[in-house]
Amino acid sequence: MVYIGIDLGGTNIAVGIVDENGQILCKGSTPTLLPRPYGPIIADIAKCSLETLERSGHTLDDVAAIGAGVPGILDPRTGIIPFCTNLGWHDVPFITELQKYIDKPVYVGNDATVAGLAESVAGVSAGAHSSVFLTLGTGVGGGIVIDGKAYSGAHGVGSEIGHMIIELDGEECTCGNYGCFERYASATAIIREGRKAYAQHPDSLIGQLCGGDPDKITAKTIFDAAKESDPTAVKVFRRYVRALAHGIVTIINVLDPEIIALGGGVSLAGDFLLQAVREAVKPLVFFKTMPYARIELAKLGPDAGIIGAAMLGK
Amino acid sequence: MVYIGIDLGGTNIAVGIVDENGQILCKGSTPTLLPRPYGPIIADIAKCSLETLERSGHTLDDVAAIGAGVPGILDPRTGIIPFCTNLGWHDVPFITELQKYIDKPVYVGNDATVAGLAESVAGVSAGAHSSVFLTLGTGVGGGIVIDGKAYSGAHGVGSEIGHMIIELDGEECTCGNYGCFERYASATAIIREGRKAYAQHPDSLIGQLCGGDPDKITAKTIFDAAKESDPTAVKVFRRYVRALAHGIVTIINVLDPEIIALGGGVSLAGDFLLQAVREAVKPLVFFKTMPYARIELAKLGPDAGIIGAAMLGK
Repeated sequence: MVYIGIDLGGTNIAVGIVDENGQILCKGSTPTLLPRPYGPIIADIAKCSLETLERSGHTLDDVAAIGAGVPGILDPRTGIIPFCTNLGWHDVPFITELQKYIDKPVYVGNDATVAGLAESVAGVSAGAHSSVFLTLGTGVGGGIVIDGKAYSGAHGVGSEIGHMIIELDGEECTCGNYGCFERYASATAIIREGRKAYAQHPDSLIGQLCGGDPDKITAKTIFDAAKESDPTAVKVFRRYVRALAHGIVTIINVLDPEIIALGGGVSLAGDFLLQAVREAVKPLVFFKTMPYARIELAKLGPDAGIIGAAMLGK
Repeated sequence: MVYIGIDLGGTNIAVGIVDENGQILCKGSTPTLLPRPYGPIIADIAKCSLETLERSGHTLDDVAAIGAGVPGILDPRTGIIPFCTNLGWHDVPFITELQKYIDKPVYVGNDATVAGLAESVAGVSAGAHSSVFLTLGTGVGGGIVIDGKAYSGAHGVGSEIGHMIIELDGEECTCGNYGCFERYASATAIIREGRKAYAQHPDSLIGQLCGGDPDKITAKTIFDAAKESDPTAVKVFRRYVRALAHGIVTIINVLDPEIIALGGGVSLAGDFLLQAVREAVKPLVFFKTMPYARIELAKLGPDAGIIGAAMLGK
C-alpha cells in the first residue's frame, strides 16, 4: 500500500506518494494561488494528488490513506480546520471537501507535528519510540511523537512548543503573550538581537557581512560572524544558544523523549550550533547523572512535510 | 485480583490493598525510621504489606502486582532507584530486594506521577485519557497520564513539571538552575514572597494572622489575608496565581491534556485559588477559541499515593 502526503504551504502545495517506510516514490506540486477560497485549492490538491499517483505507477486501489500537513490545527471533535493562519482559513471542512474528489481516509496534522513524525519514521529519530522535533525558523514549531504516533493532545492544541513561556514578562509574542520560547529560539530572534547588537557595535564583522545594511542581517550572518569569533556575534549566538537550551531542558524535564531533533532554517548552522546546544543543555538537566535525550540535527529537510503527512494515516 | 500500593515517605510508609477500580480495601503503615539502610526498610515494607493483605481477607494468590510511589525515580534500564532524595537512597535495587519477600511483579513510580495516576483512575481525572496532576507543596511535582498510563519518559526523567524553566535567570532553584516553575508555584514561593511583602508592609493583615512572627507565615496565612482583601496579601496571591497560570499555559500549549488537577497543600485554598487560576489561564492560552484542559482541584488527598502506586501494575 502507498500513502498520499500533502504539504500545504502559503505559496506552494507539495504532494508525494510515499511507501510505508516513509520513502517518497513520486512527487508533484501545485501553486496555492492565494488569495482564493479553499474550494478550488482543495480541488487542485486532489487533482495534483491523482496525477502524482498515476505518475508513480499506482492506482487508488493501492492508496491506504491521505494525510495533509497544514500551517494550523485540526479540531479532532469536528474534523474541521478552525484556522490556518497563513492561508487565511477559518473553519474549513478540509476532510469532507477532499473526500469529494478522493474517497479515502484523510488525516490532518500541524506542519511541525507532521515533520516530527517524518523524522521519527524515516529521519534522524527513526527507531525512537518518542521524539521531539523543533523547527527553528520564523517561529518555533514543535512535533511530539510518543509511541511512534504524532501527539497533538486531547483538543488538538498541544505540541505548540514555540509557545512554552520561558520568561515571565519577557519579549512580546505574536500570540499576544509575553516570553514565549519562539521569541528567543527562532531565526527571528537571532535577527532581532543581531540588529540590536550591530547598532551598538557598528565595527562588528556583522557589518561587513551584511554590507552595512542591517536589513540584510539574517541568522546566517550572525552564525557566520560568530564562527569567525567576532565578539558581537558570539555574544548574540551565545544568548541564543542559552535560550534554546533552556527550552530544550524544559522539554527534557517534562517529556523526556529519546531524541530531540533540531530542524528549520536555523539548524542549517549545523554542527557549530549543535555542539554549542549540547554543551549548554548538559549542566541544566534536572537529573545530572541520568541519561537524557540525544540532541541531533533533523535529516529530512523540506521533504519531511510530505513524508510526515503521508505517515499520519499509517 | 487486588494490588498492593506502597507510599514511601521519609517519615512513614503507607500501604494499601487496592482493587482494580482504585478503591482502597484495607490500609496499614509502618515508620520509615531514617536514617537506616534500605534493607530493613524494604523488609518492613514487605512485612506491613503482608499483614495488611491478611487483614483485607486476601492472600498472595489474589495479588496481581505491587507498586511503590517513591520520592525519586526509577531507572527503567536497570530497575534500580538511582536516587530518592528524602531517603538518602542511591542506587537501591528496590524491585529485587522487595521480591526477596514477595514474589510478585513490582513497579516503581515517582510519588507525584503516581498521585496523578490515582486521580486518573479514581479521582477528579477519572475517565480522562490524558491528565496532568500538579502537587503544589514544598516544591511542585508533576504527574502526566497519557492514554491512561503514567508517563515518565524514555529515561524515567520526565514529568518533572516543577523544573520547567519559566523565567530565564529567575529565582535560584534547589536543582541548581534558575527560574524553575516550582520557585514560583510552590507553597515555598508563597511563603517567601509573603514574608518579603510583610517586611515591606508590617501593617498588613498578614502580621495579625502570623502574630507578628514572619516565621509563622504559611501559604494559608497569605490566602486567608487575601480572602479578606488585604492589599499586601492580594498582591502576593495575584503574583502567585499569575506564575502558576503561566506554567499551566505551557502545559496546555505543549501537552494539551483533558484535565489539569491541582493537588498538594496549596490546593487546600480550594475554590478561591481555582477560580483565580482559571481566570488567569483563559487569556493566555494559544488558541483562544478552542477548548482546552479543564482545571480542577484534585480529589483524593493523601490516599492518592497508595492508590496510584497500586495502579502502576494494572
